[in-house]
Amino acid sequence: MKKAIFFLINKKGILYALNLLLLPLLIQAQRRPSKIVSPEVLPDNSVIFRLKAPNANSVQLSGTWPKSFKNMIPMTKVDSVYEIKIGPLPSDMYEYEFILDGIPTLDPNSSMVTRDGAWIQNRLMVPGAQADIYDVKPVPHGDLKAVWYNSATLGTERRMFIYTPPGYDKNKKSYPVLYLLHGGGGDEEVWLSRGRANYIIDNLIATDKAEPMIVVITNGNPVTTAAPLDRLAAMQNKVAPGINSMASGKFEESLVKDVIPYIESNYRVIADANHRALTGFSMGGYQTQNITNANPDKFKYIGVMSMGLFSTFIKDGNYKKEEHVKQLKELQKNNPKVYWIGIAKDDFLYSSVVKMKELYDEVGFKYTYRENEGTHDWNSWRLYLSEFAQLAFK
Amino acid sequence: MKKAIFFLINKKGILYALNLLLLPLLIQAQRRPSKIVSPEVLPDNSVIFRLKAPNANSVQLSGTWPKSFKNMIPMTKVDSVYEIKIGPLPSDMYEYEFILDGIPTLDPNSSMVTRDGAWIQNRLMVPGAQADIYDVKPVPHGDLKAVWYNSATLGTERRMFIYTPPGYDKNKKSYPVLYLLHGGGGDEEVWLSRGRANYIIDNLIATDKAEPMIVVITNGNPVTTAAPLDRLAAMQNKVAPGINSMASGKFEESLVKDVIPYIESNYRVIADANHRALTGFSMGGYQTQNITNANPDKFKYIGVMSMGLFSTFIKDGNYKKEEHVKQLKELQKNNPKVYWIGIAKDDFLYSSVVKMKELYDEVGFKYTYRENEGTHDWNSWRLYLSEFAQLAFK
Repeated sequence: MKKAIFFLINKKGILYALNLLLLPLLIQAQRRPSKIVSPEVLPDNSVIFRLKAPNANSVQLSGTWPKSFKNMIPMTKVDSVYEIKIGPLPSDMYEYEFILDGIPTLDPNSSMVTRDGAWIQNRLMVPGAQADIYDVKPVPHGDLKAVWYNSATLGTERRMFIYTPPGYDKNKKSYPVLYLLHGGGGDEEVWLSRGRANYIIDNLIATDKAEPMIVVITNGNPVTTAAPLDRLAAMQNKVAPGINSMASGKFEESLVKDVIPYIESNYRVIADANHRALTGFSMGGYQTQNITNANPDKFKYIGVMSMGLFSTFIKDGNYKKEEHVKQLKELQKNNPKVYWIGIAKDDFLYSSVVKMKELYDEVGFKYTYRENEGTHDWNSWRLYLSEFAQLAFK
Repeated sequence: MKKAIFFLINKKGILYALNLLLLPLLIQAQRRPSKIVSPEVLPDNSVIFRLKAPNANSVQLSGTWPKSFKNMIPMTKVDSVYEIKIGPLPSDMYEYEFILDGIPTLDPNSSMVTRDGAWIQNRLMVPGAQADIYDVKPVPHGDLKAVWYNSATLGTERRMFIYTPPGYDKNKKSYPVLYLLHGGGGDEEVWLSRGRANYIIDNLIATDKAEPMIVVITNGNPVTTAAPLDRLAAMQNKVAPGINSMASGKFEESLVKDVIPYIESNYRVIADANHRALTGFSMGGYQTQNITNANPDKFKYIGVMSMGLFSTFIKDGNYKKEEHVKQLKELQKNNPKVYWIGIAKDDFLYSSVVKMKELYDEVGFKYTYRENEGTHDWNSWRLYLSEFAQLAFK
């Protein structure tokens, strides 16, 4: 097949320039023969999805658009192409995939793919105000560095990303630092791949909506060193003694004992609570609570996304309300400038946030509350970061 | 569904610690319900692949293993799971995918996914000597930085990766630089995602097989600024005037005029030909030839991977042999220390390399030749980098 294509081109003696034009496509074409347009965003922000699948029994479209559009939509077969038009969709970034005879399948006509742990899906950017917050814009871009640091707490080298704002390498200024945590199943890549953290911060800085800041993106799983492809093979599924899960609290400890000192000794940062922010969603929202409860003097900007008080913590015998209240009072004494809580109306953890707010109100603990249409997904977390980052360091 | 799972856990009052253990899995499980093991690497390096697909008509396995194992293997349905065992496979890193009713599909039970342009596939690492060259090992790791630089030649900001060797930030030494180019359809991420360049160099440095070096990985497509997700949306498919393809030669020009000066003014490098290496495969092998032919005094270490003289160049009227010979003689005068050519026996460009060698022999131009079992794929290019990097700067 490969040889045949090349031979054909060769035999026909197509012009030199044409060959050069074709070469990348040619090499590409050897593995992905049928090119149809999908997704096609129409001028009114309706979107047509297409999948050529002559041998399939059924194809459905699944995506993170608002629930009014349905999550799982049967596609219609016209000749050999399954097709569906949805929308107009509100401007936003969405994840989508095809369900081909029951199996989640990427759109072979798009190379826009993001990963959150084991969820690998296509990206759809629907133009407009919300997409503009997440998209790459013609503004100065910060640098993004993957570094390995030693965590004495977790007994291993670990990988993290450090975003430095535009101009960092050209000036001598010191910067505030935002520590950004991910959710269960994720890793240090997800706030970049799916969260667009670097572009959100680029765009906010460029429009003077956020202070220039360093952003530190860690891997919040105490048992893994890095994202799957960057993990020591011998360490796969290997659990270090006493660090066996998120319940160990060891990630929280390592952030304070290993990550912050690493950043503060290797980067030009303003090393005080007024210039440290911490936020995370889901598991990372839980970790944010743990870290700030245990270290009330470390962060003046705190964002708890999509996570409240786990109802089960309260029911079982291990939750000590008294202790929690004491921690909250201590935190209050340290006057956090922002304690931000974000939750979507259809989030399965919504009731846990209601419980958390009840407790905070009872204690008189001050917070800012943000409720949005949506669910426990990246549409919420990207939005939250874009809002929380504007509140930090001001 | 989400709420149901959470409610269930809640009602049953499972222990606090167990909840925390389960949370990441739980959140994960909401989208990927059935977990089976795939791929399963057996002690003898045979591999079992599995896909639960009760509604599919057929599933095949496609992968980059040696051709003796066949590229496209029908999988057998046992109950609702399609399964196939292949091997024992030679130690190496392979790309694979399932073909589900004719559509390339990722293995939903693996989060090991790499991308080369539009080809998004799963990764399989088969343990042993070859995998050890590509895998993350417990050795010091270099840092990897994504930066945006201005290309006056291409009239835009562009993205590239810069690998600095372990210790770079802690010492004051200056380093040699390897410039690494990708193939048609690829972008600046592919030498990392699929090529394992940073880990190959980490491992070679750690075992004293390669000199500590900086590695610069560019985007070789003159018409795009960055990988798909990092590209300005407004720039998609937008062709700058006069820079419309690889035939423009503008990427080659920009490497010399924009990239090298950027690196040499922003990093601690030894800025002479003895400390510059250039290599690339396929389209990048063509660009490597163009750059070194046009700039014979810039690089003393040159690697041309999987690309020779395009037969079509010779047939049509635009190829000027005389000019090429003159360039080769000029390059020879500059005494490159290594001019390395690598090609696989089943590469569809094999005959172009035969033609190139014939010309070089005719001219008396010296080169090192490496032929391997294999084809035009990443198994060859990873191997080539691991060998070429050992020859550079020595």
